Amino acid sequence: MTIAEAEHAHGAQAHVHSHDDDHHDEQGHTHDPAPDDVRGQVRAVCARAREAARALATAPRTVKDAALTALADDLVAATDRIVAANAQDVARGEAGGMAAGLLDRLRLDPARVAAIADAVRDVVRLPDPVGEVVRGSTLTNGLRLRQVRVPMGVVGMVYEARPNVTVDAAVLALKAGNAAVLRGGSAAEATNTVLVEVIRAALERNGLPADAVASIDAWGREGVVHLMQARGLVDLLVPRGGAGLIRTVVENSTVPVIETGTGNCHVYVDASADLGQALAITLNAKTRRVGVCNAAETLLVHADAAAAFLPLVLPALRDAGVTLHTDERTAAAAADLGVDVLPAGEKDWGDEYLSMDLAVGVVDSLDAAIAHIRRWSSGHTEAICTTDLRAADRFTAEVDSAVVAVNASTAFTDGAEFGLGAEVGISTQKLHARGPMGLAELTSTKWVVTGDGHTRP
Amino acid sequence: MTIAEAEHAHGAQAHVHSHDDDHHDEQGHTHDPAPDDVRGQVRAVCARAREAARALATAPRTVKDAALTALADDLVAATDRIVAANAQDVARGEAGGMAAGLLDRLRLDPARVAAIADAVRDVVRLPDPVGEVVRGSTLTNGLRLRQVRVPMGVVGMVYEARPNVTVDAAVLALKAGNAAVLRGGSAAEATNTVLVEVIRAALERNGLPADAVASIDAWGREGVVHLMQARGLVDLLVPRGGAGLIRTVVENSTVPVIETGTGNCHVYVDASADLGQALAITLNAKTRRVGVCNAAETLLVHADAAAAFLPLVLPALRDAGVTLHTDERTAAAAADLGVDVLPAGEKDWGDEYLSMDLAVGVVDSLDAAIAHIRRWSSGHTEAICTTDLRAADRFTAEVDSAVVAVNASTAFTDGAEFGLGAEVGISTQKLHARGPMGLAELTSTKWVVTGDGHTRP
Repeated sequence: MTIAEAEHAHGAQAHVHSHDDDHHDEQGHTHDPAPDDVRGQVRAVCARAREAARALATAPRTVKDAALTALADDLVAATDRIVAANAQDVARGEAGGMAAGLLDRLRLDPARVAAIADAVRDVVRLPDPVGEVVRGSTLTNGLRLRQVRVPMGVVGMVYEARPNVTVDAAVLALKAGNAAVLRGGSAAEATNTVLVEVIRAALERNGLPADAVASIDAWGREGVVHLMQARGLVDLLVPRGGAGLIRTVVENSTVPVIETGTGNCHVYVDASADLGQALAITLNAKTRRVGVCNAAETLLVHADAAAAFLPLVLPALRDAGVTLHTDERTAAAAADLGVDVLPAGEKDWGDEYLSMDLAVGVVDSLDAAIAHIRRWSSGHTEAICTTDLRAADRFTAEVDSAVVAVNASTAFTDGAEFGLGAEVGISTQKLHARGPMGLAELTSTKWVVTGDGHTRP
Repeated sequence: MTIAEAEHAHGAQAHVHSHDDDHHDEQGHTHDPAPDDVRGQVRAVCARAREAARALATAPRTVKDAALTALADDLVAATDRIVAANAQDVARGEAGGMAAGLLDRLRLDPARVAAIADAVRDVVRLPDPVGEVVRGSTLTNGLRLRQVRVPMGVVGMVYEARPNVTVDAAVLALKAGNAAVLRGGSAAEATNTVLVEVIRAALERNGLPADAVASIDAWGREGVVHLMQARGLVDLLVPRGGAGLIRTVVENSTVPVIETGTGNCHVYVDASADLGQALAITLNAKTRRVGVCNAAETLLVHADAAAAFLPLVLPALRDAGVTLHTDERTAAAAADLGVDVLPAGEKDWGDEYLSMDLAVGVVDSLDAAIAHIRRWSSGHTEAICTTDLRAADRFTAEVDSAVVAVNASTAFTDGAEFGLGAEVGISTQKLHARGPMGLAELTSTKWVVTGDGHTRP
């Protein structure tokens, strides 16, 4: 085979179209018939995204920002179409007995569409991470080295029935120069179909390839399996959603995965804590929003602070509507205070409640608090309330979580709060990204070596 | 269950011992009986490494360096023991018909043991990456944020029969504050057993936990399966070795993996190249060392340079002992020059020869060269020889590999050459690390947030 033949074979493969593809080939190529198996079709979507990623990777910020600004306008202009499609999903959800909370996350009205468009405009304002020189030097032999931030390539996103994530994920990927292959929940399929159409049209009208954003929703769960196995076509997979979804992706993916989101966050009130601050932080961390991953799920109180702090915090939590699951020492204090509690078991220490529930325990020492957290935490965010510098230093050094807070609420763990701009998710693993992931976390780097005929002895 | 009971259950679990464990428990705990299944035993090793990692994570550089210096001395002192164990492995390899090249990699003599010890001393001299503040700021609300480099935790290494990797991998992991769980090739088992004993003894004598370095060789291939599934106990798995080993780990691991090493590296000679430089770079990239991942495996020549360059490079490569696998245009030029060539097929464009073989092709344009590389490269290192600034810029921007070199040999892709000190491997994936991995690539980060009673509105 000559090189030209090999290139032809490759080109043909990269242009295989699948049944849902409405993209017209500007170069006038005739297309091979679509592969008739799900694996082939999903891989064809990923291969086209990979080709599109090449254009995104070298697109300057002005081009990307213009397309995203146009997208924001297009979303608002398409409000009626989006809301109508969404009404189908909502009706299907209601008929299927979907829980009220999920229905609320699923539902879009004109105000919510406008908010999604505004979020796109926020991303336009963020700096472009691509091209940043991370490190650089000139070696003793005169070789010039620089490590430059480059797009990741093709980013796969698997998430549940929140249609705003469709736009959010696509826009963050695009801003960082990536293509995105999306798998939203089937409950939002009609909405997502329209949203992806609007995104692809905006890209194409603004000189970027439509294939840079694609959905594989049409192939259902089987499609996700092949997305997870598309190593070499997809560079990164980010699951966003419940623990079950994340576990499935982690266990079945050969594409590199970043685990996000599960937050069994702890507040530890040290013997030396400012109890007023500790009370405010505990209430804020637990009750500000209960369905988010940075909410506190366990409160640990040093035995020396328990006698003073439990009478403050237990009634306040009860009055705020929190159900308390406690160890025996806390239960005894609660009984004295007339506060009802439930007994805490392994499940309570380990669970991310995502509800108005809190596990509460008394520990005998800072060591015991650290040991408890190391045992049960999901590695998201833990806070210590203390006025003791050594306790603060030990807690921050020895607690092995993405974010460790001293005298601050766990609720601050958030990309926007941290000044990263938009947030792709919060990584609880240690590889590549840890904590809130912004645009930079959707990039990789490349070494560029420049010589003048240099050879290595 | 009370918190104390939960802690006890955890403590017991963390202290389960397996049959090969000769570590004496200084705290005088009685141990539960060893689990009698391989999964349980491998996980127990990982759990002990996890516990040991905690001590390593907060060990200051002086302590780590003292232990590593002692280890270097101990290795030299144990030369006879190491060489004797190695002789068993070599004898077994010879009896089993092991290839000469593999036998040479396996064999240790006193000089090689001394070289391994010197490499340990080199690592001692490297700066400690732990504690570096990567980013930091004070938010408008007064919250102070810093992102600090921390150890990865437990690093798993799976590699083939090169006993020097046992020491190398363990020492790099330790210097970066990690524990290491090692799986060397069974062909080096006797050697590795002694090496791990020497390492563990050096750690223990210097106030660090012996369990920070452990081997799972005793459980063979089944052990590797459970290491790959030990998500939550092991933070990172680095396979080093042949493509088959790496594919197995990538496909079967739920622990995050960094893919290393496969290098189908290209040299592209542009129309505008300085042909003298291009000749030197091609010969250096191909023939300097053929068994390493940064060696060139394909040469692409622009059609406009072919008439002048092929008569230079083809005889020179032949004279250097290189077997040429070429496309038709190169074959025609070779015939005119009286140089024997073999026809190149898909396998030649795709293979990492790791031998005195080179695929050679003529391309009609820079675009065709980039397309060929994007199609066939393993994403390791590609070089362009050119005097055309636009060609250099397009090649570096559009070739999607870990390292892109302009007028320099691919052989420079190396941690030591790049000034990173020791090298864990060369990552060809985009997540976390790309290109040569030094000590920093064996770390993660942690956000430390400091407030004064801050709550989020």
